[in-house]
Amino acid sequence: MAVKPILFQDGVCRMLDQRLLPTEEVWLDYTDYREVAEAIRTMVVRGAPAIGVAAAFGAAFGARDIKEERFELFFAQFEEVCSLLAATRPTAVNLCWALERMKTVARNNSAAPHTELKNILLTEACRIADADIEINRALGRHGEKLIADGARILTHCNAGALATGGYGTALGVIRAAVEAGKNISVVADETRPWLQGARLTTWELMQDNIPVTLICDNMAGHLMSKGEIDCVIVGADRIAANGDTANKIGTYTVAVLAREHNLPFYVAAPTSTIDLDMEDGSRIPIEERDSSEVTHCGGHRIAPQGVMVRNPAFDVTPARLITAIITENGIAQSDYSTALANLVKGA
Amino acid sequence: MAVKPILFQDGVCRMLDQRLLPTEEVWLDYTDYREVAEAIRTMVVRGAPAIGVAAAFGAAFGARDIKEERFELFFAQFEEVCSLLAATRPTAVNLCWALERMKTVARNNSAAPHTELKNILLTEACRIADADIEINRALGRHGEKLIADGARILTHCNAGALATGGYGTALGVIRAAVEAGKNISVVADETRPWLQGARLTTWELMQDNIPVTLICDNMAGHLMSKGEIDCVIVGADRIAANGDTANKIGTYTVAVLAREHNLPFYVAAPTSTIDLDMEDGSRIPIEERDSSEVTHCGGHRIAPQGVMVRNPAFDVTPARLITAIITENGIAQSDYSTALANLVKGA
Repeated sequence: MAVKPILFQDGVCRMLDQRLLPTEEVWLDYTDYREVAEAIRTMVVRGAPAIGVAAAFGAAFGARDIKEERFELFFAQFEEVCSLLAATRPTAVNLCWALERMKTVARNNSAAPHTELKNILLTEACRIADADIEINRALGRHGEKLIADGARILTHCNAGALATGGYGTALGVIRAAVEAGKNISVVADETRPWLQGARLTTWELMQDNIPVTLICDNMAGHLMSKGEIDCVIVGADRIAANGDTANKIGTYTVAVLAREHNLPFYVAAPTSTIDLDMEDGSRIPIEERDSSEVTHCGGHRIAPQGVMVRNPAFDVTPARLITAIITENGIAQSDYSTALANLVKGA
Repeated sequence: MAVKPILFQDGVCRMLDQRLLPTEEVWLDYTDYREVAEAIRTMVVRGAPAIGVAAAFGAAFGARDIKEERFELFFAQFEEVCSLLAATRPTAVNLCWALERMKTVARNNSAAPHTELKNILLTEACRIADADIEINRALGRHGEKLIADGARILTHCNAGALATGGYGTALGVIRAAVEAGKNISVVADETRPWLQGARLTTWELMQDNIPVTLICDNMAGHLMSKGEIDCVIVGADRIAANGDTANKIGTYTVAVLAREHNLPFYVAAPTSTIDLDMEDGSRIPIEERDSSEVTHCGGHRIAPQGVMVRNPAFDVTPARLITAIITENGIAQSDYSTALANLVKGA
């Protein structure tokens, strides 16, 4: 049973602190939307679908604290809450998707009594969390059909239970293949600088007894050249209308390597990750994070004081390198512009 | 003035401990060949040319301790010394090259008095160290002609002064371009797991005031796709007769990325790195090092206890991805089989 990284219990949102895994399992409690925003910004919680879920709880907590009873005044303050949450991380579109959904629910219930409206928003956050797991399971059922028995699958970063409400996108496909009785083994890129692969993907797959081998990011090409990888599955932070996909830094490199070795390269993501307003990947905002993530590792300095650093947190894989995009509504395999629009409509 | 990582003073070989850079600069003293072997194995000293130099001093120290005066008996023991040194690391051919050269010098002086033979061998080790710097400078002069003014050069691992007797191979070309008045900036891959790029390349380029920007290995593809890299230069641990080149793990990936973006990919290495007995790269032995290098970073555990790990220390870049191989005797740019044989003959 895959871990759920965000729980809602007794009016409190509990998050598994992903900065401390795998050496420590610490749960943090949140009841204030500003603290939820800080948790997203500092990566207590990360992964596009999971930060959507966290933001929804943040918005519900923000609504809970608003004193204005007249809807127009309430909604003006609620929009400020949502803006603060939306500004925490720029690349993943699920964050905005979840907040837009919360705002729509508020507007649709503008006539509800003040206290009831607040309850409706909290219920909606819980729904987003629960629905995400179902979405991942549906996505997994579609995706596992692409996976052969015995497949040795490379994944990058963590698109697992920890990156979602639970179950996972890329790792959801892997879990579904295992549940379908297939013999699957995983190779996990460690994914510098934040080491989501080394710290999170290995941890959650080992908890589920799915065989996983850890490598450094720069070893994937060598393993492919030796015939030790059969396909690649990754998640996504934002998919443009034409299929160009933003995902964790290094994903583009893995896609180039997969093409060089004629290996299928699959993207697994809910339709909430598809941004039909974004024509192609060239304008997806790429977050550049603090240089200390690169100059330090495990709290230890690994580079000289004062060295210049680049730290883009994401890159864009062009659609031409993607074999298929797997969603809860089905699979897009070519002509992404039409196929993705249809999958989103089917949502 | 580039650092020299191996010094010979008052009968003692001093090595800059490259495991501790850049946070600590500690010099260790060696007078025993077994300790030199251990220093090579544990990577106090690393880099193909530098371990050749270190092994030559190790052989000279081993010879110094041999009591047998009859040449046949002396040489039998000397060969044992050389075998122990040669077994420390399997991939770099310079190690064997240096030891073969020491054995040849011993054989050529079989008639010399016992004490004089020992001095001749120590002198030869010093010659190998000094010659390596001259070789790098010559290599740099040839190579810098390939580098345009204003070039933004990506390098992987450390093929610098620290990897050689001094000055460097890949970084020697960069130093020569700077000395020729060109405006050069360097992007250094951090080079997990051992972080030669983060720890060593940045450190030695900053000492020489050559602009250097540190990135994680998985960011190179993104920078190339954004047009921020003009060419790649790397060193080599062994070059097969057909031009296939073994170098630090991750080099192959960088070469695939360079080809994808139509960027020149240069290998810089002394002719002692060319192994004409090795027909192609498929049979170059690839060292697999301890899993703790991957599960830990800066002494800190970054992966779950008991996780499976792969840790190949090198990979092979096929000749077809290499734009030119730069040596002290000139540059090979195509038809590597003929060109490399001619460059070795010219040595």
